Amino acid sequence: MSNPPVALARWGSFHVGGREVRVAGEPPREVLFTPGSAPALLDPNGTYLVGAMYAQVMEPAPRRGTVPLMLWHGGGLTGACWETTPDGREGWQHFFLRQGWEVVVGDAVERGRSGWTRIPEETGGVPVTLTVENPWQRFRIGPGTPQEGRVFPGQQFPADAQSWRNFIRGCVPRFTTTDELTLAAYGALLGRIGPSVVVAHSQGGFFAWRAAQEWPEKVRALVLVEPASTGLAGKVAALADIPVLMIYGDYIEGDPRWPAIRARGLAFAEAVRAAGGQVEVVDLPAIGITGNSHMIMMDRNSDAVAGLVQEWLARRGLHA
Amino acid sequence: MSNPPVALARWGSFHVGGREVRVAGEPPREVLFTPGSAPALLDPNGTYLVGAMYAQVMEPAPRRGTVPLMLWHGGGLTGACWETTPDGREGWQHFFLRQGWEVVVGDAVERGRSGWTRIPEETGGVPVTLTVENPWQRFRIGPGTPQEGRVFPGQQFPADAQSWRNFIRGCVPRFTTTDELTLAAYGALLGRIGPSVVVAHSQGGFFAWRAAQEWPEKVRALVLVEPASTGLAGKVAALADIPVLMIYGDYIEGDPRWPAIRARGLAFAEAVRAAGGQVEVVDLPAIGITGNSHMIMMDRNSDAVAGLVQEWLARRGLHA
Repeated sequence: MSNPPVALARWGSFHVGGREVRVAGEPPREVLFTPGSAPALLDPNGTYLVGAMYAQVMEPAPRRGTVPLMLWHGGGLTGACWETTPDGREGWQHFFLRQGWEVVVGDAVERGRSGWTRIPEETGGVPVTLTVENPWQRFRIGPGTPQEGRVFPGQQFPADAQSWRNFIRGCVPRFTTTDELTLAAYGALLGRIGPSVVVAHSQGGFFAWRAAQEWPEKVRALVLVEPASTGLAGKVAALADIPVLMIYGDYIEGDPRWPAIRARGLAFAEAVRAAGGQVEVVDLPAIGITGNSHMIMMDRNSDAVAGLVQEWLARRGLHA
Repeated sequence: MSNPPVALARWGSFHVGGREVRVAGEPPREVLFTPGSAPALLDPNGTYLVGAMYAQVMEPAPRRGTVPLMLWHGGGLTGACWETTPDGREGWQHFFLRQGWEVVVGDAVERGRSGWTRIPEETGGVPVTLTVENPWQRFRIGPGTPQEGRVFPGQQFPADAQSWRNFIRGCVPRFTTTDELTLAAYGALLGRIGPSVVVAHSQGGFFAWRAAQEWPEKVRALVLVEPASTGLAGKVAALADIPVLMIYGDYIEGDPRWPAIRARGLAFAEAVRAAGGQVEVVDLPAIGITGNSHMIMMDRNSDAVAGLVQEWLARRGLHA
């Protein structure tokens, strides 16, 4: 890799948030944790911590972002989606660190290193797990299946067989019943880190809108990459002082779901503007950047799109 | 934090391993992934990738380890256990990076960022999830409960209420039916990274013994921190050329399980020696380092124990 080294002033991780749940009246059971170890009697009764969230922080030296920059991943993924891309290039974690931002990468509740302790028992629902085939069309890579390998003309996602397999390996089961816990945990994360830029993708955009409405003093700017949903219509005024950048990729018109999702996003942007907010919407194809899938931070032109984000943040005085 | 910056020549992550599983004949269902998004028809039939493993690599500049150094976590945890300790100090990931090792931190199969795609369906079993109370005695922190807060005399684990909560937040559900998949994935990790030092804790020690027996050419040294189990008795000869360091903490005599687990470990070490291998066993209290729990890499004297490991590796010519 030809990129120069990066100096880290500090790095590390922690878990925040979650709430206590008490369980009683269940029978104990014997568990042999490891073959050749010794059986342990496991009492399932007691106190559980449910809904905590993992976050990893890297602070470069020197630091040029005026506040930390958080990367909030989308559904079915973990914070790893911001690290190395499926074809082995540096991801947005690298890009923003190299620009001098303190970068905070979180794993949403019940995903990745946050763990899913008692999630099915407490929230109900069954985990949604993706096949190798499923996201090919849903993330707008191409028609048919990944095994057929046809992509939309000019596709930027690294859709060769090996990269697609790498991408699928990074997909994790998710519940669709944990939004309340996840929003609370993002609130705890913002509380611990302090005012930050939030860069969010897809489902992460839903949490980013809501978190900015709940804790506006903790969000200095929102960058929403194909947000899957909007904030609350009744609380648009809370967003009046937070600059927002929304980014959409290519191939939306022919998709069965994304025209409606984007339309709702644009309508919400208009409502925020009507309440005094500043929302900029970038349709990448409209400014000549074509070929982006739903996974913009993994697409081969990911650095070019990150560069747009960086310029937008710098114009707002958030980068020294 | 008073530690100096560290220069990273490169860093990033990837997933390796796993196998394809085909599912057919199940009914599709409609899923609303995010409120305010658009429902998607999810077809559960198709191909799944099961048993892949996540690993994060950091390479410092300059590099002084002659090979990479891997950190394999124990049961119920993820690779995050090697990062910041529950009381906020630098962990073993930091320690070995600062010594100039390329450090590889993995999440075992079905834990953390490795995900648990179709694990219950393919391997059976139910996930084991820990209460706040459970590991207090089992990891030899103290008698009673963490709420009571009594610790063994001289205890080194940061057992104040906040640190214990931080530790519990990092515990994730685990299955006890995934050993075969996990061993295969560690093999894939060693295959991708190449010959390495493997530092493993608890359940990770079980996988480290087995991996060294399966792929001895890929393991330059084994450091086993309270390994939960042993290798295969019939394959001790495979370990003849791999130096091994085993480390045990304090308070073992009074524990209901650890005297037996350690006795089996020592008997296996003797069998490896009889086959020509070199196994060094360090009982920390016997050399004057007292107070260590089962979670040695998190104990307040974690750097002192890491220093022992570092010296042992340097004596074997693995550090330039």
